[in-house]
Amino acid sequence: MSVPTAIGVRAMGTDLGKIVGPSHVETRPAALVAYRTDATFGFSGEPTAVVRPASTEEVSRILRWASERHIPVVPRGAGSSLAAGAVPTQGGIVLALTRMNRVISIDPVDLTAVVEPGVTTQTLARDVREHGLHYPPDPGSQRVSTLGGNVATNAGGLHGLKYGNTSGYVLGVQAVLSDGEVIRAGGRLLKDVAGYDLVHLLTGSEGTLAVLTELTLALRPAPAVSTTGIAYFADLEAASDAVRGVIAAGILPATLEFLDARCIRSVESYARLGLNMDAGAMLLFGDDGSPAEVSRTVSAMADSMREHDAMSVQVATAVTESEALLAARRCALPALSRLGGATMLEDVGVPRSRLPELVRRIDAIADKHGVTIATFGHAGDGNAHPTGCFDPSDPQARARVAAAFDDIFATAVELGGTITGEHGVGAAKLPYLAAQLGPVHIPLLARIKHAFDPAGILNPGKLGS
Amino acid sequence: MSVPTAIGVRAMGTDLGKIVGPSHVETRPAALVAYRTDATFGFSGEPTAVVRPASTEEVSRILRWASERHIPVVPRGAGSSLAAGAVPTQGGIVLALTRMNRVISIDPVDLTAVVEPGVTTQTLARDVREHGLHYPPDPGSQRVSTLGGNVATNAGGLHGLKYGNTSGYVLGVQAVLSDGEVIRAGGRLLKDVAGYDLVHLLTGSEGTLAVLTELTLALRPAPAVSTTGIAYFADLEAASDAVRGVIAAGILPATLEFLDARCIRSVESYARLGLNMDAGAMLLFGDDGSPAEVSRTVSAMADSMREHDAMSVQVATAVTESEALLAARRCALPALSRLGGATMLEDVGVPRSRLPELVRRIDAIADKHGVTIATFGHAGDGNAHPTGCFDPSDPQARARVAAAFDDIFATAVELGGTITGEHGVGAAKLPYLAAQLGPVHIPLLARIKHAFDPAGILNPGKLGS
Repeated sequence: MSVPTAIGVRAMGTDLGKIVGPSHVETRPAALVAYRTDATFGFSGEPTAVVRPASTEEVSRILRWASERHIPVVPRGAGSSLAAGAVPTQGGIVLALTRMNRVISIDPVDLTAVVEPGVTTQTLARDVREHGLHYPPDPGSQRVSTLGGNVATNAGGLHGLKYGNTSGYVLGVQAVLSDGEVIRAGGRLLKDVAGYDLVHLLTGSEGTLAVLTELTLALRPAPAVSTTGIAYFADLEAASDAVRGVIAAGILPATLEFLDARCIRSVESYARLGLNMDAGAMLLFGDDGSPAEVSRTVSAMADSMREHDAMSVQVATAVTESEALLAARRCALPALSRLGGATMLEDVGVPRSRLPELVRRIDAIADKHGVTIATFGHAGDGNAHPTGCFDPSDPQARARVAAAFDDIFATAVELGGTITGEHGVGAAKLPYLAAQLGPVHIPLLARIKHAFDPAGILNPGKLGS
Repeated sequence: MSVPTAIGVRAMGTDLGKIVGPSHVETRPAALVAYRTDATFGFSGEPTAVVRPASTEEVSRILRWASERHIPVVPRGAGSSLAAGAVPTQGGIVLALTRMNRVISIDPVDLTAVVEPGVTTQTLARDVREHGLHYPPDPGSQRVSTLGGNVATNAGGLHGLKYGNTSGYVLGVQAVLSDGEVIRAGGRLLKDVAGYDLVHLLTGSEGTLAVLTELTLALRPAPAVSTTGIAYFADLEAASDAVRGVIAAGILPATLEFLDARCIRSVESYARLGLNMDAGAMLLFGDDGSPAEVSRTVSAMADSMREHDAMSVQVATAVTESEALLAARRCALPALSRLGGATMLEDVGVPRSRLPELVRRIDAIADKHGVTIATFGHAGDGNAHPTGCFDPSDPQARARVAAAFDDIFATAVELGGTITGEHGVGAAKLPYLAAQLGPVHIPLLARIKHAFDPAGILNPGKLGS
């Protein structure tokens, strides 16, 4: 689909300017460069305009206008997608929601926040902390990522085992359908079963069903303390056995992250944190809650690490130390990006018990294709981020990494897993979706898409296409 | 819709018998009586046949057969719906899933159970306990209710504030579409964002989109201890202030249930538990987890009760005592059913902060209509069960209760709430759905229904109709 010739760029700018004000529409090529891509390597599109609405009403008028003209509309928050979810692969309008960035309310009795979609994850986390509250989802890009994007992709984070993905915190949405009609689903309610669960259908729908214009999110009381520990193992099998021990001890902790040997060495070279460069795997573990409970669970975890042949175990005794340990995990991606110049970060998941097998097979696949792949991720929830590191100026190297990822996706599916645990499908993983979901499921997604967006203008070429 | 004349009852029995075996089809009127109703007062239908498949393959063949003939199919578990969700209001076939009652696997490492839909909630709870695990959702009907029904209605229970509804425990489903095609969504994964979230769209869809034939459910480690307390207040406002105090203390406990004065007196007359008949409201509170943590949270809750003018506070010191206290809440419905002869149990919800206002207005509505309504429910999550008690042989009494519930539904919606927190919409609440969801939402539900079930055979006259 491309912009019909019936409307030229200038007329588009004029029409959209009447809705949002001329200063909030851009059609100049230079101003559009930043909207051609997101954070995904190798994907770009050619938008005709970017428009920045300030209200649900403006979003509604834009969508009605675009729907009547069959012009693609690509909703966008911070553009931090790692699956080309925000790339306008079929041109059209980029609908940037960053001006809709108000925290509308924070309610400490109902434990809810109502926000516009352009609020950044970090802003909400900070604001609710001032009320003694906690918004648990913390995707890696939380400093820049928007809550609208988090909900649209059902973003994950470092604490999935205890706290789950973003989805578990979405109580209600206001959304605009492609014809401009506005719906509400859910609300400030913990339990509401009236109608189909559109709240969770729209969560993770990646802007292909409707545009989210207001979110009602669940909060929790802020945990009193949070403590982190670190353990080194000879290999990921031993680390995985320690994770089993933690679960068997009846503990579902806030943090259970892993780095493989290549990640450990990269992070150490990059950040000089004093990591053990001889280890085959590293586990970051931790919990939050009341002081006594965290002391109990972190001690029990440390015990499990030792019982499962950890080379060494260290538990932070101060907040700053906990933060330093977590830094090792948080800087895995920037560290790896220095290895080859460019990185392709993937996001496969398997049942927790099959994580060691997945990583072993990823390593074998990397060897087979002659590429460098380092893997880190969430040992607690089985979500791994194999990261291909390569020279972007070498098309053959890039092709080899892509071929390795083809094998890795197939392996994840074979192990009962997923091609994406938390990043989304976007344009990048759409070709692999049928292999996971099967042939009946894909046309069903298209029919659901059509039920919401009969004109097919919302983020075309992504989910439901 | 009614059964087309092209196929008679005898031919239907023969055709279905070829799929499931003749002994698993019933068309004799006497055998169908039990399938005309569910647990909802005042709703019945006239099924032509009941069929009891033993496998996904048989369900698929039945649906393909029914789809080709445009014959309604009403999936049914235990028939414990309180919203006429399992009543065949448009005739057709009742698809009883009770023979599909195998617990296929329980995995203590991945913390998952895979079950067929006819397994009862209590059976799974008992089976996982033997592995030191816990399946938290415990709807009031758990002794008889099936997991398929729990998932199809997104059933709640007594522990919603800490543990949420059934929805939070559904990781994956196998489902049969109305044309007989089989899909899988989700799996043994905590995080999986590949595709639209069909797992949660099908959860709570009340058998109108697909027939669930296998469920992958999330488990948790069994809590080491569980303790319950009880507190009496002069009125529900004071009780609600105490609940606010609990939340403000940073505690999200497993149990925070309330009974109003009429419930207290009914339960006491019924069960002689030694409840305080002079109290205006009663709170049951409790938590589960490690001994130290439960001791901390239950003490803090008891403190909050006292600080908010509780008439008395009692904390159980033994498991049997905890169970006795919980019995007061669990027998509220049978106790109330003795007040007038029949009960209409409703299921409205509001944001937690508005619960006292809701109950106050329910009392005023009952007075206005001259009916007896007692209210109990979930103080932690804002879900209330106003229960109309009346003489079923008096049609005017029944009409007055129905008129009062019309007002109660409107009040719940006005307070930002829902017409159903955990029981579902079924046939009983379909007339009220548009008032909550708005005029755009309802046709969207119908389009979603059509995307799954173009023949419109699945549980017609319910959601999506």
